[in-house]
Amino acid sequence: MKTQLEQARGGVVTPEMRRVAEKERVSAEVIRAELAAGRLVIPANRLHLAGVGVPDAAGVSCGGVKLDAVGIGRSVTTKINANIGASPVSSCKEHELLKLQWAVKFGADAVMDLSTGGDLDATRQFLIANSTVPIGTVPMYSMIVAKPVEELTYADMLAAIEKQAAQGVDFFTIHAGILRRHLEPAMRRKLGIVSRGGSLLAKWMLHTGRENPMYEMFDEISAVLRQYDVSYSLGDGLRPGCLADASDEAQFGELDVLGELVHRARASGVQTMVEGPGHVPYDQIEMNMTRQREVCDGAPFYVLGPIVTDMFPGYDHITSTIGATAAAYHGASFLCYVTPSEHLALPRPEDVKQGCIAYKIAAHAADVARKLPGARERDDAISDARARFDWPAQFELAFDGEQAREIRGRDKVGEEDYCSMCGRSWCAVRLSNEIKAGVGKGSSQ
Amino acid sequence: MKTQLEQARGGVVTPEMRRVAEKERVSAEVIRAELAAGRLVIPANRLHLAGVGVPDAAGVSCGGVKLDAVGIGRSVTTKINANIGASPVSSCKEHELLKLQWAVKFGADAVMDLSTGGDLDATRQFLIANSTVPIGTVPMYSMIVAKPVEELTYADMLAAIEKQAAQGVDFFTIHAGILRRHLEPAMRRKLGIVSRGGSLLAKWMLHTGRENPMYEMFDEISAVLRQYDVSYSLGDGLRPGCLADASDEAQFGELDVLGELVHRARASGVQTMVEGPGHVPYDQIEMNMTRQREVCDGAPFYVLGPIVTDMFPGYDHITSTIGATAAAYHGASFLCYVTPSEHLALPRPEDVKQGCIAYKIAAHAADVARKLPGARERDDAISDARARFDWPAQFELAFDGEQAREIRGRDKVGEEDYCSMCGRSWCAVRLSNEIKAGVGKGSSQ
Repeated sequence: MKTQLEQARGGVVTPEMRRVAEKERVSAEVIRAELAAGRLVIPANRLHLAGVGVPDAAGVSCGGVKLDAVGIGRSVTTKINANIGASPVSSCKEHELLKLQWAVKFGADAVMDLSTGGDLDATRQFLIANSTVPIGTVPMYSMIVAKPVEELTYADMLAAIEKQAAQGVDFFTIHAGILRRHLEPAMRRKLGIVSRGGSLLAKWMLHTGRENPMYEMFDEISAVLRQYDVSYSLGDGLRPGCLADASDEAQFGELDVLGELVHRARASGVQTMVEGPGHVPYDQIEMNMTRQREVCDGAPFYVLGPIVTDMFPGYDHITSTIGATAAAYHGASFLCYVTPSEHLALPRPEDVKQGCIAYKIAAHAADVARKLPGARERDDAISDARARFDWPAQFELAFDGEQAREIRGRDKVGEEDYCSMCGRSWCAVRLSNEIKAGVGKGSSQ
Repeated sequence: MKTQLEQARGGVVTPEMRRVAEKERVSAEVIRAELAAGRLVIPANRLHLAGVGVPDAAGVSCGGVKLDAVGIGRSVTTKINANIGASPVSSCKEHELLKLQWAVKFGADAVMDLSTGGDLDATRQFLIANSTVPIGTVPMYSMIVAKPVEELTYADMLAAIEKQAAQGVDFFTIHAGILRRHLEPAMRRKLGIVSRGGSLLAKWMLHTGRENPMYEMFDEISAVLRQYDVSYSLGDGLRPGCLADASDEAQFGELDVLGELVHRARASGVQTMVEGPGHVPYDQIEMNMTRQREVCDGAPFYVLGPIVTDMFPGYDHITSTIGATAAAYHGASFLCYVTPSEHLALPRPEDVKQGCIAYKIAAHAADVARKLPGARERDDAISDARARFDWPAQFELAFDGEQAREIRGRDKVGEEDYCSMCGRSWCAVRLSNEIKAGVGKGSSQ
């Protein structure tokens, strides 16, 4: 069976391409052409597309929700990803399902299960079985549950990747770009390596004295991904972990390798996106986006934030939303959210909500700025509702109408033509409506 | 007595200029030269500098806190303003003092008292008496308490302005740029006029058939401001209230008048800044900043947001922080915060806190990006603390250490070398430190 990429190259428009086109208001042919060129991916494991159930306690298959295809690339709207997952400190499959549900409710287009605690295989399968959005993972994490990273063999690694592909995972973060030659510059950094996958592979390389196994086995890994049509998300093991480390030799050295791997992955028929920073000063974001597009031949860029200042822990959904908007405006296609608990703790459902909303703001603001067709329609509709003091319509059109209603409701002003911010006499919008009537009269005098 | 501007022009370095220089790590001569050129303002009513007490119930003067001078301009760090003020729906002097205290605690460099309810004069005096930061007002608001706007005479308006100047207000928003010719284009907008002062003046103009009195009386108003050294914040009565209205004929028509008034104000010896939007799509922000600088001859630009999408009421501290960062990077000097209750209700102390923190993020991220001297020091220090797992130092260096401590503390992991996000075995920073030691060994082999 052929991957979406191979079919697109062969001129075939798949049902998934049609579905993406329908949601995006562009033609299926545009989707096909962008996919064929490697500038768009539809992360859709064929098993997840068909629906993968999991047996319940009585052995009856449950879940088996089918994936609703999502397109990621510059020709369509900017997408956001929510990272969830249990950790050794806190793990419960049902909590993760709750986070998945909150993520989707608040606009996540994809969800990564980054569990490092609990029963990883069972959690992953449970989430896939219950998700309409693409599920991504970092297969490395499950490899080190069985044995210490330095003892992992090529066979162990391939087996874990194959197992997760067979479970229906839609995209894999594979840190194949971090090479031995990058470790020395990375260790000169303030914060070294802040990617979990990157640091585990660095440890493996250091211990075995060999090159990155993901790089060495890249074509074999690609063959597994091709079989299930899992998409690559080429990981940035050397993304900067603070402003001081941004745009350095380690980061761009790895990016060059990722550029090479984009071509190799495409040659293997595997859809590919590339991951990016991290922590980047605001003035370096445009340059980073331009450089990635050049080096990676237009492969969709999947960025984490970037965070634009390091000194606001507890508010990194905001510090990173600023960077994410700039990134999405200047070249990124896929934004990985950051929650208020970044750098401090495992996100809880409320963090997932706050992170998703912040990132929907970034994605949408960038789409409006990019002038995508119809991007501003809902903004315009809510502005019309504001002008006519139609509060129910405002709540309906607001991204989180519940929250808006609660804030307005706390001062008990009722469904009237003002709010408690200014009170009635000082309300500019109310006055403006009066003036509008007056100017109309005036011009006929 | 001469204003800061007049003294700067005469080559005099005032104690306030020295104080600003000391806080900003630039020389007093730079401050003086920037002030003389009109590119920097120090909003400092001479009465507030001296300390203005208010009599308490027993007739004894209390308060009388002296202003700590603040500089606003591109040669110094970006400043933020917090709007507070009672409304007819909710008014209490002590609540406003609480908001002032929260605003200053969470980083506000200036506070505007926008009260429209309660005893306006008493609230204003009470806040000035208790504020170390500059206090701004919109004198128009107090004018319409006594009589309907359309009945206001020139004398009423001048008297209100003089009264507030004599109370010690440091800067006034005066909407002198909105003229009769702008009303027709403004009424073609989706949201018309969303500035309270702008809409009140429009109503006055429409009712009396005369030109904007603030424009007509501009030189007389300047004479009052000069006497107390109150700074102008030339109001943008026609700032766009939604994306659809941004960068339109009404907005830029008014801006041209503001440009003319900057020169007239300077000629009168009055320090002047200019207010700006509002709601602006992300892609139009740089253009707006450039245009203001050209039209207003480098007068400091004081922007409200701008908000970059209209459809997230309840989260406008975030939608606007994105715009504010871009604005501060591209040309603004002073950012007026927006709180989560914007468009919905009067802000409460918690909203003031959230708004201030979001805006400190914007201001700081822009200062880092502008490469101001030392701007990144605290970011670098917290990153160093992260690398060595020095949690107490991280909390100390965090802008809101209390919040950071609370999030980390909820999973009860103690003062160890990891957090609940990944757990110990998966912690990249911990692994990275291990690798660093290893690479050191490796290179000596």
